[in-house]
Amino acid sequence: MSLTMPLSNSLASARIAIVGATGAVGKEALAILASRSGQPRATPANNLTLLASPRSAGKSIEYLGEKLLIHALTPDAFNACDIAIFCANSLVAHEFVPHALRVGAAVIDNSSAFRADSNVPLVIPEINGGLLRNPAHRLIANPNCSTIIMLIALEPLRTHFGVERIVVSTYQAVSGAGAAAMDELRDQARVVLDGGKASPRIFAEPCAFNVFSHNAKIDLATGLNGEEAKMISESRKIWDAPTLSITPTCVRVPVLRAHTQSITVTLTSPATEAQVRAAFDNAKSLMVIDDRANNAFPTPLKASHQDDVLIGRIRHDPGETVSQTTTADGDAYRSWCLLVSGDQLRKGAALNAIQIADALCAK
Amino acid sequence: MSLTMPLSNSLASARIAIVGATGAVGKEALAILASRSGQPRATPANNLTLLASPRSAGKSIEYLGEKLLIHALTPDAFNACDIAIFCANSLVAHEFVPHALRVGAAVIDNSSAFRADSNVPLVIPEINGGLLRNPAHRLIANPNCSTIIMLIALEPLRTHFGVERIVVSTYQAVSGAGAAAMDELRDQARVVLDGGKASPRIFAEPCAFNVFSHNAKIDLATGLNGEEAKMISESRKIWDAPTLSITPTCVRVPVLRAHTQSITVTLTSPATEAQVRAAFDNAKSLMVIDDRANNAFPTPLKASHQDDVLIGRIRHDPGETVSQTTTADGDAYRSWCLLVSGDQLRKGAALNAIQIADALCAK
Repeated sequence: MSLTMPLSNSLASARIAIVGATGAVGKEALAILASRSGQPRATPANNLTLLASPRSAGKSIEYLGEKLLIHALTPDAFNACDIAIFCANSLVAHEFVPHALRVGAAVIDNSSAFRADSNVPLVIPEINGGLLRNPAHRLIANPNCSTIIMLIALEPLRTHFGVERIVVSTYQAVSGAGAAAMDELRDQARVVLDGGKASPRIFAEPCAFNVFSHNAKIDLATGLNGEEAKMISESRKIWDAPTLSITPTCVRVPVLRAHTQSITVTLTSPATEAQVRAAFDNAKSLMVIDDRANNAFPTPLKASHQDDVLIGRIRHDPGETVSQTTTADGDAYRSWCLLVSGDQLRKGAALNAIQIADALCAK
Repeated sequence: MSLTMPLSNSLASARIAIVGATGAVGKEALAILASRSGQPRATPANNLTLLASPRSAGKSIEYLGEKLLIHALTPDAFNACDIAIFCANSLVAHEFVPHALRVGAAVIDNSSAFRADSNVPLVIPEINGGLLRNPAHRLIANPNCSTIIMLIALEPLRTHFGVERIVVSTYQAVSGAGAAAMDELRDQARVVLDGGKASPRIFAEPCAFNVFSHNAKIDLATGLNGEEAKMISESRKIWDAPTLSITPTCVRVPVLRAHTQSITVTLTSPATEAQVRAAFDNAKSLMVIDDRANNAFPTPLKASHQDDVLIGRIRHDPGETVSQTTTADGDAYRSWCLLVSGDQLRKGAALNAIQIADALCAK
């Protein structure tokens, strides 16, 4: 079977390899596939190949009641595979993606290895999924988690009013740095609660009961860290807006899962609050939680394990003191503030990758 | 003794009443005074009157080896007092500040009760301490902690280049909600680590391993919460800049002490990075921690129990893509990004109040 010819129009009949099946994103991808059990699009166990480092080879992972053997990732591992979902780091992607492509598999890569490559589409299906209809695209890059969460939240505003400028500060969970970082947060929290002093291992700073600038490497010339640079370049590529103004500040918080973002966005055309809310109410993959009376808004706990990105604190920017125009349903403004939370392992990574796989099979 | 006539030009000889001596800010004020032991400006134990609710009256607090009895806060409690430092809530301030003023005491109030009153100076000594030289000012309001921390960080930029617009997202410690909130965070963290589910008491949302929009009440019309509204109105008053553009988003994080802020600031006149850094290097009550190579920047743990506000991640805003002018020492820009951490119980509350008391005595 090859994806160059349409088959059942469903991921169900595709033979899927998951690279990095034992990591946080790989496990999440398996969990999402397993949750489809009983649906027409469900992936049967015998269509799955789990690949990981030689260290994990020979172990097994349960999937719908069956034990799936983990195979070592080798150049020949993709021979019986239609789609390879890479849930590994950039080094692994650079080395093994070419092998998967060579034997005709479509590849969806979660790492940053190919995101900046102008020949590789960088896809959030709700935004630029149309790129997946081009059969020439056999390698698709999955964007950075912070980028996906931010753009899913802002896409309705871009569609309706245009977006000119974004100022975003993130509150990022430690799990963006993997399962070991979650252990580090738990271990350090216990030490601090018992009166001790946390000793960082994975992060440069203590993470329990602390907040620190994102651990990605800082560019010495610009002062931007790697996460911030990704949010800028990837958003511009996905929105095809090469001069979009983005001001990101990425910060880690002692949260186990799901990223939060405080966003101030400047629209091209002014909008009233009713218009902004209507845009969000009808948006894909977005759920509004915005109860001013009860102070109930998105939080990472609410967003964890959810497919939708949560959005709330929807309000006109008090820094824009004069309205742009007055309409029948109120004053219209260009600057708006938002609070967003999204599960970075789910829509921010594994779910987005599987949605891409779905779209590739449907084409 | 009355402060209307100068005495020793030092707080040392002033009789000080601390209202709310058993609360988080009151305790911090006592700790700061105690830390001056041996200095000429040190306050001897017999110059201190500790006032609290009837519930705490009769208990005692140790100060420089002596046990100071806590007295009940009553209308007559200020009879032998030159300066009353109120470390209580607005209700207490509204009721008892008039009694302290009536008997001739100067009052420094940490609550929000009088901050908006146009007859009451709202003072950060490093910024508008000149107001304290006016003997007509017997009641001085101490600003909100987030406002103090932000303005101490931005004052050097205002002085040198002018400030036109501020976008700020906060990462606020739970201790801003008092000592009980710190217990709630610790208790919830233990429950979660032991596999349980946290039940909020003080906050509407779980605080352990979570992030949530600040618990201050939301204005139903504007969507602004009380903390954000304070940052706007107080900054405008302190800087005497009634139309200053400020966009605050206030968020609580699971940190025990010290507030962090991600700030994007637009200057009136463009500045080079060297000029911006020089302004910070020579600033009062501000310490630069900005090591790009080692990813070392301000954190709330580093800021805790420090007098100075910490500032770092000093970088040109990548959202401003074209420089305003080019000078001998590089391109000049108007928009800059910063990460700031400050101890909200210390410079954000008790220390600022004691600095005001120092200035009142020196006048």
